[in-house]
Amino acid sequence: MQKHVFTIAKVCENAGIKHAVICPGSRSAPLVYAFTQHTKINCISAVDERSAAFIALGMAQQTLLPVVLIATSGTACLNFFPAVAEAFYQKIPLLVLTADRPPELLNQQDGQMIMQKGVYGKHVLASHELLCYDENNIDYKLTERIVKHAIEESVNPIKNGPVHINVPLREPLYNLPIDISDVEKAITHTHEFIKPSMRKLPFLKELSDAWISSKKRLILVGQSFPNKAIKTYLEKISNADDVVILTDITSNYLTVANIQHFDAVIQFSQEEILEQLAPDFILSLGGPFVSKALKNWLKKQKGIHHFRLQGEPDLVNTYQNVSQPIIAEVTPYLESFQSLHIFKRDAQKNYLQLWKQSENKYLVSLENFIQDIHWSEPKAMYKILHCLPAETVLHLGNSSSVRWASWLGISNTEMPCYSNRGTSGIDGSVSTAVGAALANPQKIHTLIVGDLSLFYDQNAFWIKQLPTNLKIIVLNNGGGNIFNWIDGPSKYPDQLEYFTTPNQLSIANVCKQYGLNQLVCDQEEKLEQTMNSLYENFEQPCLLELVFDMTSNLSAIKAFKNLAY
Amino acid sequence: MQKHVFTIAKVCENAGIKHAVICPGSRSAPLVYAFTQHTKINCISAVDERSAAFIALGMAQQTLLPVVLIATSGTACLNFFPAVAEAFYQKIPLLVLTADRPPELLNQQDGQMIMQKGVYGKHVLASHELLCYDENNIDYKLTERIVKHAIEESVNPIKNGPVHINVPLREPLYNLPIDISDVEKAITHTHEFIKPSMRKLPFLKELSDAWISSKKRLILVGQSFPNKAIKTYLEKISNADDVVILTDITSNYLTVANIQHFDAVIQFSQEEILEQLAPDFILSLGGPFVSKALKNWLKKQKGIHHFRLQGEPDLVNTYQNVSQPIIAEVTPYLESFQSLHIFKRDAQKNYLQLWKQSENKYLVSLENFIQDIHWSEPKAMYKILHCLPAETVLHLGNSSSVRWASWLGISNTEMPCYSNRGTSGIDGSVSTAVGAALANPQKIHTLIVGDLSLFYDQNAFWIKQLPTNLKIIVLNNGGGNIFNWIDGPSKYPDQLEYFTTPNQLSIANVCKQYGLNQLVCDQEEKLEQTMNSLYENFEQPCLLELVFDMTSNLSAIKAFKNLAY
Repeated sequence: MQKHVFTIAKVCENAGIKHAVICPGSRSAPLVYAFTQHTKINCISAVDERSAAFIALGMAQQTLLPVVLIATSGTACLNFFPAVAEAFYQKIPLLVLTADRPPELLNQQDGQMIMQKGVYGKHVLASHELLCYDENNIDYKLTERIVKHAIEESVNPIKNGPVHINVPLREPLYNLPIDISDVEKAITHTHEFIKPSMRKLPFLKELSDAWISSKKRLILVGQSFPNKAIKTYLEKISNADDVVILTDITSNYLTVANIQHFDAVIQFSQEEILEQLAPDFILSLGGPFVSKALKNWLKKQKGIHHFRLQGEPDLVNTYQNVSQPIIAEVTPYLESFQSLHIFKRDAQKNYLQLWKQSENKYLVSLENFIQDIHWSEPKAMYKILHCLPAETVLHLGNSSSVRWASWLGISNTEMPCYSNRGTSGIDGSVSTAVGAALANPQKIHTLIVGDLSLFYDQNAFWIKQLPTNLKIIVLNNGGGNIFNWIDGPSKYPDQLEYFTTPNQLSIANVCKQYGLNQLVCDQEEKLEQTMNSLYENFEQPCLLELVFDMTSNLSAIKAFKNLAY
Repeated sequence: MQKHVFTIAKVCENAGIKHAVICPGSRSAPLVYAFTQHTKINCISAVDERSAAFIALGMAQQTLLPVVLIATSGTACLNFFPAVAEAFYQKIPLLVLTADRPPELLNQQDGQMIMQKGVYGKHVLASHELLCYDENNIDYKLTERIVKHAIEESVNPIKNGPVHINVPLREPLYNLPIDISDVEKAITHTHEFIKPSMRKLPFLKELSDAWISSKKRLILVGQSFPNKAIKTYLEKISNADDVVILTDITSNYLTVANIQHFDAVIQFSQEEILEQLAPDFILSLGGPFVSKALKNWLKKQKGIHHFRLQGEPDLVNTYQNVSQPIIAEVTPYLESFQSLHIFKRDAQKNYLQLWKQSENKYLVSLENFIQDIHWSEPKAMYKILHCLPAETVLHLGNSSSVRWASWLGISNTEMPCYSNRGTSGIDGSVSTAVGAALANPQKIHTLIVGDLSLFYDQNAFWIKQLPTNLKIIVLNNGGGNIFNWIDGPSKYPDQLEYFTTPNQLSIANVCKQYGLNQLVCDQEEKLEQTMNSLYENFEQPCLLELVFDMTSNLSAIKAFKNLAY
């Protein structure tokens, strides 16, 4: 066994890494041994590498520290790729360690080997390969340097994300070393994440001039991880002056939003109202928005002030109208901006008031709709989103779940809310929630997903011990029902089999297979009671299946989509 | 809808492509529409892209024609990657069509988009991207040229394999065209696969000189797709002269092998016997060997003649002793070689005889072992491999299944036999067999896999209609049991949870979920009857679970591994 695997493990431990997700395999055995037997890092094992990687993503999403992922050689690392791409776009730190066979065997038909070096292409922040050592000829210092550097790359002020280290290991893999104290001693110092400050304040004057001269000011905050300082600065601004703050359902800044239901307001308002709501000034930050209505509407707003504040140098210009990119560290920049003495209430400016009027109209019409509508997705989702326990972290699937939340809103705006919107795949929603629940056991974690996402990612449950603080709510709409109600596919009735699930699987079988306690609710009257049961049982993980009649569900969805006022 | 999607579909149809595997999605809708509504290509739908891609691989493995794979944008294409890598190393043609969003939206937080262009790196034979057209400004000729070229690249005399075309599509996606006759007419001619001949015969004299001067001649044929001509030439050579032909269990040339049990012979023979069996001449062709014993033993044979005959220019030198690479088209080269007048029987040469003696000793000792041993994997596998119905195509999982077959042999050497040995992953064994059974419905397809492979790839069954000609035999050894009997991991008793399955899942639940008829055999006496039942039912797909007691199974495996003679 090449003893630099202990250097890798120890450097990770010293850097403060708390969790590792390990996939079974032989080539990776030395790494697994080093992490499980010689560090205090919490190691969990997951068989399906695709799920394992999303579990690691969920853990890192909760802790905001890099989580280590260990794979054996071959296609194992390719199964990590969907989660690696999601981590890249969602800026979640992962340290991906892929065991490999010695380089001289590559492409020589020697078995279980692919071209692992650099395999994630541009979807990692950096990619490294350690040297392949003989047992008695190991460069511990170089190993230490590369691993430390990789960890720093995964958490940096510009952009967190996944970093890959390929680790070729020569046989013998299984001779246990008697003493590794020399390896441990060789590591020079504990690691501290370097968070260099970027306190440059470009275009601050231009921003404040534009703010003063504008009447209809919009601040947009896309998907983000919560940051108290940013929250405080945004609150100060909105308390002192007239501004509309729209934050995505996954922004984790819902408390500073002053129009929560913008997605529905834009979707359902008439053209002349939308013209009044149009901004002449935008300050945007953070990741993507779920709302397609917002995106399409903002793309029409041309010739306005649009300041895009972001850390990374490559401009994100989602609405194609950024007038001035501001590349700077967001927190200190906002601090400086909010401390300018330019904010004052002006009775003449009533932009927020205009939005409030529209939102109130929507809320009246929504409440009437919910009261009148029969048992269906919108009814169930509205009720659930307004009665979740206070101590819940909310995870939303990428099918209809996250859209419902964006349209219907959630009553507890303090609730952390996550969804894999980096790539918007359905491939890892369940695993991500499993990882989050494991890494943040003080909280209850509620996952709301469609049945398609559940079946796709059922190997999420294939771990030794499922977290009992995980509560899963499944919208059983018969498989990819979203394709029935986004406009396009319903135009191809012959084709629906290619859009929706081709096979009716049973959620009961999934629960039975993985030891989940199953609750079923198929009518409004049972919802309160089943929700109570869901949150009362902490002896095993629980799943609540919401069953709808396909036809009446579709009619309710159509009625919701025609909600005009 | 951009009408060049019909060009893509029609060019594929004209090229003789018979099958397409389609994954649900919205961006890919125009492609799906074109393939399903405007071609006669058999389209099947599979939800999990990872399984879908292995299903396509299994189809192409049976037909040796490219199979089309269609994904929507985002991480869908990454889930194809494990099968793409397997296809690359196993040289199986696939045409991977990934729908994409327009390039100007890339990395702009516009949703469900990753950097798809070139995403498979070096694991495809070629990678293309079509232009992103507006509806009225489409270059049909360019589309035709790229698609034709891609198909040619996927099936060429040097090396078949996967080819990727990224297909960015602009909205609207769902406006159906009234008339596509103009598009169809624009396609100039039907496509014929170009199979240029490479009838160069390099080093033929060196090869024949070495043949004549050698006494212990070995021909090695690794994993291959069957080719009648090659079979004939090899038979002629071995009938005319003294040569040992060793063919891998997945070579599909078992009929020309004259020592079927070489894997066990090498594993179990004493050192002095192995010295006698050592070759002074090797002619090697084809893909990898399953046998690790063969690999390790041949790596020790230095300074011998070793001619490696292969089409692709990058030398495969598995045993690190190739003395002369021969880069040439294999069939015509072997034809020329066998037609030389150099082959004659020589009573002095008794190399084959030596091998036969060793093999016979092994067979006697094996038969005694099988007779005496209690119910266990080796007993069950021996019985099964020697009683499979004649009309069966055999698919072997990558865990212990393929190793058992290599050690125990199969009685019907005409039986086609496949295993994903390109990358030796467990991620797609089940899906590959499902695809094979769908594409080759005239045959019965028997898949033998471990329980770990079954659970890992259970989404293989998530298709509309499972093939009833598929028979699945599962070695239920309690999850990744192979790690208990390859030497290394058993040295780490504390660690076994990281090597084996961390959760006991039930095969019965899998059968129930996907509508498989389940049979169970937990003792020798029931084997014949359950095997008969397995092959009698063609109303639904059937699965036979072989259940072993963990402890007595392990002792039987150990006894087998200590078989000396």
